[in-house]
Amino acid sequence: MTPEEFRAHAHELVDWMADYMAGVEQYPVRPRTAPGEIAAKLPGAAPESGEPMADILADFERDILPGMTHWQHPSFFAYFPANSSPPSVLAEMLTATLAAQCMLWQTSPAATEMETRMMAWLRDMLSLPDHFLGVIQDSATSATLAALLIARERATGWRANEDGLAALGAEGTRLTVYVSEEAHSSIEKTMKVAGYGKANLRRIATDEAFAMRPEALARTIANDIADGATPACVVASIGGTGVGAMDPIAPIGEICQTHGIWLHVDAAWAGSALILPEWRHLADGVELADSFVFNPHKWLLTNFDCSAFYVADPSALERTLSLVPEYLRSRESGRVTDYQNWSVPLGRRFRALKLWFVIRSYGVEGLREILRRHIALASDLFDEVSGTPGFEIMSPLRLALFSFRCHPEGMNDEDALDALNRTLIERLNDSGSVYLTQNLVRDRFAIRFSIGQTSTQQRHVRQAWELIKETAESLSKTF
Amino acid sequence: MTPEEFRAHAHELVDWMADYMAGVEQYPVRPRTAPGEIAAKLPGAAPESGEPMADILADFERDILPGMTHWQHPSFFAYFPANSSPPSVLAEMLTATLAAQCMLWQTSPAATEMETRMMAWLRDMLSLPDHFLGVIQDSATSATLAALLIARERATGWRANEDGLAALGAEGTRLTVYVSEEAHSSIEKTMKVAGYGKANLRRIATDEAFAMRPEALARTIANDIADGATPACVVASIGGTGVGAMDPIAPIGEICQTHGIWLHVDAAWAGSALILPEWRHLADGVELADSFVFNPHKWLLTNFDCSAFYVADPSALERTLSLVPEYLRSRESGRVTDYQNWSVPLGRRFRALKLWFVIRSYGVEGLREILRRHIALASDLFDEVSGTPGFEIMSPLRLALFSFRCHPEGMNDEDALDALNRTLIERLNDSGSVYLTQNLVRDRFAIRFSIGQTSTQQRHVRQAWELIKETAESLSKTF
Repeated sequence: MTPEEFRAHAHELVDWMADYMAGVEQYPVRPRTAPGEIAAKLPGAAPESGEPMADILADFERDILPGMTHWQHPSFFAYFPANSSPPSVLAEMLTATLAAQCMLWQTSPAATEMETRMMAWLRDMLSLPDHFLGVIQDSATSATLAALLIARERATGWRANEDGLAALGAEGTRLTVYVSEEAHSSIEKTMKVAGYGKANLRRIATDEAFAMRPEALARTIANDIADGATPACVVASIGGTGVGAMDPIAPIGEICQTHGIWLHVDAAWAGSALILPEWRHLADGVELADSFVFNPHKWLLTNFDCSAFYVADPSALERTLSLVPEYLRSRESGRVTDYQNWSVPLGRRFRALKLWFVIRSYGVEGLREILRRHIALASDLFDEVSGTPGFEIMSPLRLALFSFRCHPEGMNDEDALDALNRTLIERLNDSGSVYLTQNLVRDRFAIRFSIGQTSTQQRHVRQAWELIKETAESLSKTF
Repeated sequence: MTPEEFRAHAHELVDWMADYMAGVEQYPVRPRTAPGEIAAKLPGAAPESGEPMADILADFERDILPGMTHWQHPSFFAYFPANSSPPSVLAEMLTATLAAQCMLWQTSPAATEMETRMMAWLRDMLSLPDHFLGVIQDSATSATLAALLIARERATGWRANEDGLAALGAEGTRLTVYVSEEAHSSIEKTMKVAGYGKANLRRIATDEAFAMRPEALARTIANDIADGATPACVVASIGGTGVGAMDPIAPIGEICQTHGIWLHVDAAWAGSALILPEWRHLADGVELADSFVFNPHKWLLTNFDCSAFYVADPSALERTLSLVPEYLRSRESGRVTDYQNWSVPLGRRFRALKLWFVIRSYGVEGLREILRRHIALASDLFDEVSGTPGFEIMSPLRLALFSFRCHPEGMNDEDALDALNRTLIERLNDSGSVYLTQNLVRDRFAIRFSIGQTSTQQRHVRQAWELIKETAESLSKTF
């Protein structure tokens, strides 16, 4: 395909893209596709000869699009948002065209220096400590893995990388990690990856508001030390996945300081809300953290992947992850930042560009307005659900997230309530009009309501609530 | 930004993108930017108010573009290629617009089923065994990490994830990994991540062609077993990074089978060449492998990130990486593939789409033609360098890669030759006309020549060679 052919196809595509953005509401949020239905439309073997782009685009619209879940639909209330925005898409178009590898300063000086500057902009937007330095990772999971690796190295006198954990184990180095009962599954997953073992994960009890109890943390750490273990890392959450749990960072940080334990703060979703002065208090105590992660690709209008990972001491990160064979040396080594030394993968896209486009295009005040709208919409709905007979709040409002269930008066069998709500969410999601996610709250089935898509307005939330009420009412009669 | 404003800006951008593709040769391949020069042009703080997109795009051209290394430049002969193509960029435009998270089948059925199908297309294009099943990872490093994790689990009776490596160490489980002296640095890095420890990496001697010696591998494994270690994994390379080393997969595979050791094949760069029947023999014995990785984002015209990771037994991969909290359950679980269980990160872009666009647009025969052109260009240049007095081949031609140095007649001090060639490559790269990477070959400084950019033609290679000869000649006089 020549540049001129590309030009023609790309102009055509841009019109499709703009139409999609304007008309995404017309699609079902989640498709009613059966397993295997899309696969059946894709030939079993690659074509030997090239096919016209017009055919490919037509097939995309006819065969693929009907099988997509529309994450940018304004009635997407599932999981956490992964919101995007037009300026972010423009930047991604450039990133794809330049197709630069940004592993070293030399392999793209501008991309490296923009990444450094964007991480500083975001740090200051969130009022994180001045000495925090950041790097873009693909996901919070990868950032948490990096934090657990540094913590592992520090707790083993920087010997695990060299000698391996088994060798240290012979000397009795059992490394423990602490999270709340509400912490994200990625911590267990990355503990396994880093060789800690799930058995060394301590789940600390939470209070009635789902926040980690510092006194329980302190007690567990003391017991572990008495038992000969080496506490390596505490992962505290600002806005956990299930119910948006907010751990108290300051008292947790003090405990970590006392024992020299690495404190990693996982603010993957809620971190974006720290740009709002009225919510910055959620991060009180973050100056005691050794590392911090939040995902602009969740709630800051920036396309995945863009996870912002901060460390108080980058030399510890580099010492853990740096490995420079001859072909990756450059004469600038040591005078510049080579971000391949700050992450596990070597290859890196030019991901800072979309942050530059988004932040400049909206301005910090513009971003604040959008987040405040989401939070206000969630707050209004929370009040509405709270005051509606036949519904029960299952977890409190946390920024733009809460969970609830349908609880018809007089129906008190918990298993029946689980079954009712399981059927309710399936009906709702099958309707294509909304998309919601289930969760277990204190072991009971609950429905999460999470607001954060770029284009979500009051009418989408109201329509969703009407549908929930109608569906619950008709279901309640049959249960 | 409204969809209509997006439409206008995106059309403008498309013209810029097409012009860039057509005119990328006009830029220096690598910029002559000093450290800090780009950063100085970026304001220290994020703007409070939004700025017009026209300003952002103008700043991009004026301030950022001059600091980019142009990876899609036809005179880019550095590292390995990271080639892109117009159909791939078109797909990336759609991927960014849909901005779907493809972690579960349910969160994007079409993306999941297309990923399965594209991995099958590629498997068959490379004539890999029918039972191999694939998943897209971000990079070969991440794929190798996954392989090392499965190998670790298998070698510890699936207990490392649960108990941690330290606990197993107490019982004497020292896990060893085997690579050739030429293997990629990512293996050492991922060994550290997975807790094996660098001390348990065995670098096996290579023959005169830089290939791993199977008899040396067998001997080292036997010694380790006698010494009480548990050999867990061998990583064999098809096309190593430094000199494109080709390990003999079949005899290595037989040794692995004998001892029940996981065999991972790293064909990150050269794997793409297996679509050429005349080169498929490089993978002879791959049916003995437990896992295999190659990067379509290197040499198959597909934008980063797109690393194709295959396993012979996906249940081992899932057992190692699967972790499904309540909010990630779906009613289809077990009947569909949820790719979050096949990789470390949870979030996943719709990366299969660009493969579908590229493979269909070029057809397999079209892709073969491009790779054959690259290989022929490299072969011609290799012959030319071989026959030119004052130059010395440092590593043999491997597909489209070889290395050489300037070696003036009578100059036999090795350190002086290193210094000469170090200066030579700096002059060449500073010229902006070519971009090459250095390497150490048997501890001596060498210059790699790697051909693989989508638009590289004979004239670019000829111009590079003329420049090399001229620069070397003028330099030789002063050394």
